[in-house]
Amino acid sequence: MYNRDSFEAYLKANHERFLQDFEQIINIPSVAAYGTGIQPMADLVAERFRKLGAKVVRQYPLDNGGSPVVYAEFDGASDTTMLIYNHYDVQPEDPRDLWVTEPFKLTRKDGMLFGRGVCDDKGDLSTRLHAVEAWLATQGQLPHKIKWVVEGEEEIGSVNLPAWAEKYHDMLAADGVLWEGGGYDSLGRPQMAAGCKGICYVELHADGPAVDLHSSFAPIVPNPAWRLVHALATMKDPNDRIIIDGYMDHVAPISAELRAALEALPSDDLPERQANWQLKEWLGGVSEREAFIRLYTEPTMTISGFHSGYGGPGSKTVLPAHAYAKIDFRLVPNLTYGTALKLVREHLDRRGYQDIEVRLIGGEEPADSPIDSRIKRAAVKASEQVWNKTPLVFPRFAGSGPMYPLSTMINVPTISCGAVSHPDSKIHSPNENIYEKDYVDAMRLFAALMDNFAAEA
Amino acid sequence: MYNRDSFEAYLKANHERFLQDFEQIINIPSVAAYGTGIQPMADLVAERFRKLGAKVVRQYPLDNGGSPVVYAEFDGASDTTMLIYNHYDVQPEDPRDLWVTEPFKLTRKDGMLFGRGVCDDKGDLSTRLHAVEAWLATQGQLPHKIKWVVEGEEEIGSVNLPAWAEKYHDMLAADGVLWEGGGYDSLGRPQMAAGCKGICYVELHADGPAVDLHSSFAPIVPNPAWRLVHALATMKDPNDRIIIDGYMDHVAPISAELRAALEALPSDDLPERQANWQLKEWLGGVSEREAFIRLYTEPTMTISGFHSGYGGPGSKTVLPAHAYAKIDFRLVPNLTYGTALKLVREHLDRRGYQDIEVRLIGGEEPADSPIDSRIKRAAVKASEQVWNKTPLVFPRFAGSGPMYPLSTMINVPTISCGAVSHPDSKIHSPNENIYEKDYVDAMRLFAALMDNFAAEA
Repeated sequence: MYNRDSFEAYLKANHERFLQDFEQIINIPSVAAYGTGIQPMADLVAERFRKLGAKVVRQYPLDNGGSPVVYAEFDGASDTTMLIYNHYDVQPEDPRDLWVTEPFKLTRKDGMLFGRGVCDDKGDLSTRLHAVEAWLATQGQLPHKIKWVVEGEEEIGSVNLPAWAEKYHDMLAADGVLWEGGGYDSLGRPQMAAGCKGICYVELHADGPAVDLHSSFAPIVPNPAWRLVHALATMKDPNDRIIIDGYMDHVAPISAELRAALEALPSDDLPERQANWQLKEWLGGVSEREAFIRLYTEPTMTISGFHSGYGGPGSKTVLPAHAYAKIDFRLVPNLTYGTALKLVREHLDRRGYQDIEVRLIGGEEPADSPIDSRIKRAAVKASEQVWNKTPLVFPRFAGSGPMYPLSTMINVPTISCGAVSHPDSKIHSPNENIYEKDYVDAMRLFAALMDNFAAEA
Repeated sequence: MYNRDSFEAYLKANHERFLQDFEQIINIPSVAAYGTGIQPMADLVAERFRKLGAKVVRQYPLDNGGSPVVYAEFDGASDTTMLIYNHYDVQPEDPRDLWVTEPFKLTRKDGMLFGRGVCDDKGDLSTRLHAVEAWLATQGQLPHKIKWVVEGEEEIGSVNLPAWAEKYHDMLAADGVLWEGGGYDSLGRPQMAAGCKGICYVELHADGPAVDLHSSFAPIVPNPAWRLVHALATMKDPNDRIIIDGYMDHVAPISAELRAALEALPSDDLPERQANWQLKEWLGGVSEREAFIRLYTEPTMTISGFHSGYGGPGSKTVLPAHAYAKIDFRLVPNLTYGTALKLVREHLDRRGYQDIEVRLIGGEEPADSPIDSRIKRAAVKASEQVWNKTPLVFPRFAGSGPMYPLSTMINVPTISCGAVSHPDSKIHSPNENIYEKDYVDAMRLFAALMDNFAAEA
């Protein structure tokens, strides 16, 4: 058992400096989609690891120019090893004009912290780094070994992580994986998860005339926006069922264990979400319980973007040369992203849409790990110790992440147990934010988690 | 028959001063979309009319602050009356950095004249004013009466012209209308038209959640982009047929006269267009002749813009809050834009798309006038006299314009017969230009046209 008083005193004494450290991290616009700020951010993470005395600190540059993976190892009092996953890249700040603060400047206001990445995922990363610092300064050695992977391409689908993890498979052996994400729901209940959905992100491109034309030529010139509309309409029906040929055959039935785990969880955060989002009803008019089950078990096909032609004020009488859609497929077992991609291509070809180009932007496999595990029990206990609250442990997140290569693939049980996210953190949106008090709680949680993980055999 | 020698001598003697007059007109940036230079331009047009001795010169200010209509009447040797239409507003110069000359400064270079509006439509207006001056100076009285409408909102859809024309219906009585536009094609053949299509330009708006969401919520949150895709797919089939309920019932059959007029016209400009636009085939795989007929006779429903969600590089996993499409309907008789708008609304409502908002951005009625008429014959003869060329007379343009209120509505046969436009005049684009020799020919054409129109009973 660690000395909490000295740990707490250290947090208190260093609070302002911690936020200055955090500011350094937030102010680097490490947007993987744009390729900005990546190397400076990787360097800063590596520097932080070195300052903490990690026995191994390495950057793994990627042959294809992708964001380097920053990797560190810390010694510990026991042979037990925790593998930690974080990412140092963030979503684009777009649409920038909806931000009330500067997106790439940490802003403290009314007990809150604003800035791109304060929650996802620089908040998790920074609080864990500070918790390690506080532990080392107040308790001596860490209670177990740590292996720490901080990648820089999570927001663009961790395109290089699977190959990297496969190459360093042996190096990554561990007794449990601590993932990013989590936080608490609108009723203040901590949320954890043992898995996540996969994703297949593609662009569909349709071409019309070589240049934008005056729209008076519409009777005789193909319109790529119409072509894309019609192609898309064959892939999902108006009731939002995916109707890509053979697609749903790959979706495994919901297991008894998965259903039981979901049935045991409350869905009472949904009414507030519904109110916040100003939705008359859930998609398909289903009940709250049914919506809850679907959220975690259904595969999706989302139009994340559709762009063609003129978008300014008033009218422009143009027949566009080009149309494209960004499509986000969320995958559940046993859909792999390779399967999704292949079925989309075959479906389009079968209907004469050979001209529509399908570009894979990124893919991640769905990842499930055991619902109960040592790392899960350590996390649950930490939550009870720090927050006096039993967390909701989800069998999987509704979202996706690069969990597969660092959990399912290497066969190590995983729990996501971030602590800074609250229900209105606006991750991926303008005005991303966390509470300053949660920044402190997250450090407490991580300390307790280490303590519990080392203790439990 | 007028005295051509004295007319030609006058053109020659006054050539430099004509271009100075033209320069005054071009140098006023009368962009209706910006609201700049409108009143100075209207005043200059009125002043020119007064200098020419018009018996009536009036400006009609619009109650809603729109550009005033400048109206003039000239006496003539016969009771025959020609109604002339021009507009003094021009398109924005945007994108300005692609101009090689100053857009709002008449520039003479290598036998060409550059500047915004030199072709559309200040060139037509100025050459007609100068032709009237030359006629009056060399022939005495004009051969017939003239009523002249010069509006200042053509480039923003002539939003106020129909109501104005309805109010002054009786004042506008005439024996023929001379329209703007026309010119010659890439093979040097003059082009004229007796009508044009109408237009109904709308925006369709679909709303999802109040804010952009993380796309992991897709199993339970409606996606406005999908909603718009599915709604649009009910309005046009994959073979590009408009299937809005009842829509095609309003399309009048192609009359024998219309078909004959089109069949008599060459379609030999289409192969070059097809090559330039890199099209494998015309829409629907039809023949060049069929494409030509469709171009002038078919109503269209064009997606001129579709925008929703993320459009930048790479992936953004977002479920968009909003989707909109800009739709350009080109109308043929007997589709009015009011009918189009009503049918779209009813079609959507009938299918449960009451939530999709339909915003009218602009509308112009289709305008047909008799294919053969006194004004048309006068124009054809003038073309043969001045250019030694028989023009291609189209029963209607494939595009649209504000022709309806000053032709079909007041029941006066109409011909568009501008003379300064050549195939690379770049109207609506940077570096708008005409040939200096065409400026002179346009004055000759207008004189011959007046002469013919007065002579033919």
